Amino acid sequence: MPETLLSARNLAFELYEVLNAEALTSRQRFSEHSRETFDAALDTARSIAEELFAPHNRKGDEHEPQYVDGAAQLIDEVKPALHAFMDAGFVNATRDFEAGGMQLPNLLSQACFAHFQAANIATASYPLLTMAAANLIEAFGDDAQKQRFLQPMIDGRFFGTMALTEPHAGSSLADIRTRAEPAGDGSYRLKGNKIFISGGDHGLSENIIHLVLARLPDAPAGVKGISLFIVPKWLIAEDGSLGPRNDVTLAGLFHKMGWRGTTSTALNFGDQGNCTGYLVGQPHAGLSYMFQMMNEARIGVGMGATMLAYAGYLYSLDYARQRSQGRLPDGKNAASGQVAIIEHADVRRMLLTQKAYVEGAFDLALYCARLFDDSQTLEDAEQRIQAGQLLDLLTPVAKSWPSEYCLQANALAIQILGGHGYTRDHPVEQYYRDNRLNPIHEGTHGIQSLDLLGRKVGQHGGAALKALSRLIIDTCQRAEPFTELDALRQPLEKLLARLSDVTLGLLGDLQQGRVNSALADSALYLKVFGHLVIGWRWLEQATHAEQGRLAGNPADVDFYSGKLQAARYFLLREVPGCHHDLDLLEQRDDTCLAMNEAWF
Amino acid sequence: MPETLLSARNLAFELYEVLNAEALTSRQRFSEHSRETFDAALDTARSIAEELFAPHNRKGDEHEPQYVDGAAQLIDEVKPALHAFMDAGFVNATRDFEAGGMQLPNLLSQACFAHFQAANIATASYPLLTMAAANLIEAFGDDAQKQRFLQPMIDGRFFGTMALTEPHAGSSLADIRTRAEPAGDGSYRLKGNKIFISGGDHGLSENIIHLVLARLPDAPAGVKGISLFIVPKWLIAEDGSLGPRNDVTLAGLFHKMGWRGTTSTALNFGDQGNCTGYLVGQPHAGLSYMFQMMNEARIGVGMGATMLAYAGYLYSLDYARQRSQGRLPDGKNAASGQVAIIEHADVRRMLLTQKAYVEGAFDLALYCARLFDDSQTLEDAEQRIQAGQLLDLLTPVAKSWPSEYCLQANALAIQILGGHGYTRDHPVEQYYRDNRLNPIHEGTHGIQSLDLLGRKVGQHGGAALKALSRLIIDTCQRAEPFTELDALRQPLEKLLARLSDVTLGLLGDLQQGRVNSALADSALYLKVFGHLVIGWRWLEQATHAEQGRLAGNPADVDFYSGKLQAARYFLLREVPGCHHDLDLLEQRDDTCLAMNEAWF
Repeated sequence: MPETLLSARNLAFELYEVLNAEALTSRQRFSEHSRETFDAALDTARSIAEELFAPHNRKGDEHEPQYVDGAAQLIDEVKPALHAFMDAGFVNATRDFEAGGMQLPNLLSQACFAHFQAANIATASYPLLTMAAANLIEAFGDDAQKQRFLQPMIDGRFFGTMALTEPHAGSSLADIRTRAEPAGDGSYRLKGNKIFISGGDHGLSENIIHLVLARLPDAPAGVKGISLFIVPKWLIAEDGSLGPRNDVTLAGLFHKMGWRGTTSTALNFGDQGNCTGYLVGQPHAGLSYMFQMMNEARIGVGMGATMLAYAGYLYSLDYARQRSQGRLPDGKNAASGQVAIIEHADVRRMLLTQKAYVEGAFDLALYCARLFDDSQTLEDAEQRIQAGQLLDLLTPVAKSWPSEYCLQANALAIQILGGHGYTRDHPVEQYYRDNRLNPIHEGTHGIQSLDLLGRKVGQHGGAALKALSRLIIDTCQRAEPFTELDALRQPLEKLLARLSDVTLGLLGDLQQGRVNSALADSALYLKVFGHLVIGWRWLEQATHAEQGRLAGNPADVDFYSGKLQAARYFLLREVPGCHHDLDLLEQRDDTCLAMNEAWF
Repeated sequence: MPETLLSARNLAFELYEVLNAEALTSRQRFSEHSRETFDAALDTARSIAEELFAPHNRKGDEHEPQYVDGAAQLIDEVKPALHAFMDAGFVNATRDFEAGGMQLPNLLSQACFAHFQAANIATASYPLLTMAAANLIEAFGDDAQKQRFLQPMIDGRFFGTMALTEPHAGSSLADIRTRAEPAGDGSYRLKGNKIFISGGDHGLSENIIHLVLARLPDAPAGVKGISLFIVPKWLIAEDGSLGPRNDVTLAGLFHKMGWRGTTSTALNFGDQGNCTGYLVGQPHAGLSYMFQMMNEARIGVGMGATMLAYAGYLYSLDYARQRSQGRLPDGKNAASGQVAIIEHADVRRMLLTQKAYVEGAFDLALYCARLFDDSQTLEDAEQRIQAGQLLDLLTPVAKSWPSEYCLQANALAIQILGGHGYTRDHPVEQYYRDNRLNPIHEGTHGIQSLDLLGRKVGQHGGAALKALSRLIIDTCQRAEPFTELDALRQPLEKLLARLSDVTLGLLGDLQQGRVNSALADSALYLKVFGHLVIGWRWLEQATHAEQGRLAGNPADVDFYSGKLQAARYFLLREVPGCHHDLDLLEQRDDTCLAMNEAWF
C-alpha cells in the first residue's frame, strides 16, 4: 500500500542522517530517550493519524461546523480522534516526565505532529492551538493560573485559542480596541469583539481558554499598550470545578473556502458587561508574550503547509504510477498500449517540482524544530541564545516559503490528476483549498516579509544573519569533496554572495531613513531569501545523500538518487532564477511603489 | 459605483485605440455597423450580465446541479438569464443578418461575451458550448442536419455539447472506444461512455445536441479513425417536432471544486443498444472537424480565465481603496489614523501585478478575436490564410497563459482581502476555485505546450512564427519614437532574439529525431513564449497609451499613466526573468527527464 501522509524513509533520513536526532539523547533532558523511543512515538502518531484523523478529512470539509443555539457543532468524528491524540500523550509530548509529559525533543514532537497535519489539518488545528496556548501560560502565567488553566489543558480537559484580530484590526495589531478594566478583585472585565478566532467554540473539551489581547484603561497607544488576558469560556471555581458561563458569546461562524473543519469564529467579549479575564504577566507587555505563541504557530503553519503538499504529492505520485494515458512523443503508435503518465516528461517535472518543494520545506521545518531544542537544551548559554536568534531569523521563512511553494505543489498535484483532480472524488482539490489559508493567517505574507527585512535581518547587529551565512558556507565546504555536487554548490554560493550584498545595501537604506523605498519590495526579498535557505537545505540533504550512497546500503540507492535529483532540480532550475529578482532589488525598482492610486 | 465586470474605459481603449475595431466597418460584411452599433451591443451585454448573470453567481456555486430521477436539476435563475441572453441575440451575434444574426465582427461578439464570463462563468458556459457546436454544424453539417439541428440552436431552442473524453481516454483522444455502427437507414447506432461532458444534461432547452467522437467499425487505429456524430438527447421527427428520448442516459454528475453551476456529466450512449447518431462530414475525419470547436473553446477558455481575474482584480481594487489598515513604514505613529491598504507598497504590487496579467491577457484574447475576423473577412485570400495561421499559432498561448497567470491574479485578489478573502462572504475565493479548471479543460497545460512546440511553431515552414516575429518587430519600431518606452522595448527585443535562437535549436532537434528531449521542457517553452506574446501586447498597449497622451484628453491622463506603469511592470519585472528559463532550454537541461520513476 502506498504511503499517504509522508515517506517514513524520508523522515528517517531527516531525523537520523541530516539532523542527527540521536545526538540529542546525549543531552541530559533527553537522556532517557533513544532512537527506539523516538520511533515508537512516530509509529503511534502515524497509526492514530491514519486511523482516526485521515478518515474524516473529507467529511469535515463537507460538513463544516454549524451554528446551533449559540454554539458551534462539529461532526462526531473529531472528538474521539482528539481524545486518542491526547491519550497517546501528544499534547504533552515535550513536557517534563514529572508533569505527565513524554519529555521528547521538540524535533520529535514536530515530526509526530506532522502526521496529524497531513492526515487532517482541520482537526489537527485544535491541539496545535491548545499546545501553543498551554506553552504560553506555562512560560508567563503565575502559579495560580497554571494550576487553574494550564493543568486542565495538560490533562486534556481544556482547549485553548489565541484571540487577536478585531474587525478593524487584522494585520494592524496596534489598533486593537478591546478594553479590560480592573474589577477590583484582581480580575478584569473585558469588552470587545474578536474575529477569525480558530477553535473559538466547539464541544470538544470541557472548557476553552481564550488568550485575549486587550487594552487597560491607562494603556499607551499602539503595540506598547497591549496586555494579555486569560478568558475562560466557563468560569472556574476555587476548587477547580467549572462555574457559570463567562460572558463570551459566539457571534457567528465564518464560512471558508477550505480548512472548514476548524471553526473560525466571531466572539463577543462582555456583551453583558460581565466578561471576566485574568492578566498574564505585566500590563502592556502582552504582545511580547503573545509572540511566543505566534512564533510557535507560525512554524506550525509552515509545517502544516508542507504536510498538505506532502499528502498531495504522494497521492499524485501514486496516481501517476497507476494511470495510463497516451504515448511518448517518439512512440506515437496507436496500436501500442498507453503508458503510465509518470513516463511523460511534463508529469515527471510536476512530480519532481513537488518533491523539491515538499522535501525542502519539510527539512526546513524540522531544522527549525531542532533549533528550538538547541535554544532550550544546549549546554552553553551563548549557543542557546544564538540558536534562538537564528530561529527568530528563520521563522518568517519557515512560515512563508511553504505557504507559497507548497501551495504551488498542491496545484501541480491537481494538474497531474487532470479533470479528476478538479473533482471532489479525490483529496487533492481539498488540500489546495486548505493550503490557501496559509499565506494569510498568523501574519500574512506581506507581514512576514516586513518582519524579515525590516526587523530580523538587522537584529542584534546582524548576528543571526552572519550565523546563517556561516552555516551555508559550512555546508558548501562539506559538499566540496563530492565533485558531483559542484554544479549544485556553485549556484548557492553565487546567490549567497549576491544576496549578502543586496542585504547590506537595503540595511544601509533603512539606517539612512529611506524606509518606504527599502521595504517596498520586501516580498521579493522574502522570496529570494527563502530560496537561499531552501537551496542551502537541499545542498545539505544532497551532501548527506552522497554520504549515504558511499556508506552503501544498496536498498537505498534509489532513495539517495531521488534526493540528489531533487536537489539538482532546486539548485539548477529554481535558485538561478533569483538573480533577476536581485537585479530588481539592487536597482531599487520603484515600479510598484510609484504606481499612483488614481492610475488603477 | 465601482465597475465589477471589466473597465469600460479599458475596453474602449482596446477596441478603438489598440485594435481599431472601427476599421472593420469598412469591410463589406460589417458595412452596416458603426461604433454606435458596437457600443449598443456592449451596453446590452453589460446590463444583462450585471442584472441577470452576476446575481446568481454565488447561488449557483452553493447549489450545484442535482441528479434527480435521471436528470440534472439546476437553480431557477439560470434559464431566464440565458433566455435574456438569447433574446438579445448574443447566441447569433456573428451570424448573418438574414439567418437572424447581428452580423457583428467576432471581436465585438467576444467583447460582449466577456461580460457574461466575468459575471457568471458557469452560466455563460452553456451558450459558449452551444455557439461553438452550432458553428461546427454550420461549417461541416449537411443541409438536412442544418435544418434539423442547427436552426433550433439558432432559434435558442436547442443547446449543444462536445463529447470527447472517456474514462480511459482524456488527453489521449487516440484511444477513444465509443463505437458507431451503420443502422442501414443512413443513421448510426452509438455505444460508449463519455465523462466530463459540460452541459451534458439540464432542463434549460428543449433538446441537447451532443457532438460525439466515435469509431466506425472499419476505423483505423488512433486519431485517424475518429468520426464525428450528432447525437440528440431527444430524437427529431421529419417535421422537426421532438420525438422520443434517444438512448443517451445521464450516468451521474461530477462534483467539482468550482465552476459548479455548469453540470459536468457522465453520459452513457446506447445502454439499450438504441442510441441514434448522424455522421457529420466524412468518416474518420471527425477530429479535424472537432478541432474547429475545440479551438473556439480554447480561446473561450482563455477569455474566461481572463474575465474571472478581471472581476477579482476590480473587487480587490475597490476593497483596497475602502479598507484601512496600519500605517506606512515611515509613519508608524499609532496616534495617527490607519491608511487605506492601497497605500501599502506590497498591496500596490499585488494590484499592479493583477492589472498587468488581466489587461495583458484581455488584450491578447481580443487580438485573437480580431485575427479570426481577419481570417474570415480580409479581402486578400493570402492574408486571410496568414491571419488564420497566426491565430493557430497563438491559440495554445491564448488558452494557457491566462489559465496560469490569471489564476495567480485571483490568488493575489484573495491575498489583498486577507482573512476576509478566504471566506465565502466575498466572491474572490470562488473566482479562484472557478479559475483552477482552466489549465485543465480543453487540453491541459501540458497538451497545449506540446501543441505549441511540437506542432505550431514549425508548421507551414515556420510561416506563422516568422509573421509573429515581424509583428513584434513592427511594434518595437512604432515604439521607438517614444524615448520613455526605450526601457520597455529593449527587454522585449532581447527576449525575441533569444527565443528565436532557442526555437531554431529545438526545431532542429525535432527534425533530427531527438523528439523526447526536445519536447521535455515544452511547458517551460510555453511559459517563455507566452511572456514574449504578452510582453509584445503590453508594448503595443504602451505605444497606444503614449499616442493617447499626446492626443491629449486630460481626463485620460491617469488612464494612460496606468497603462504605461502596467507595461513597465510586465516588461521590466517579468519579461527579463525568462532568461533563466531560456538558459535551461538552451542547455537542454534534462533534470526532469532523467528523473527515474524508482527514485521518487
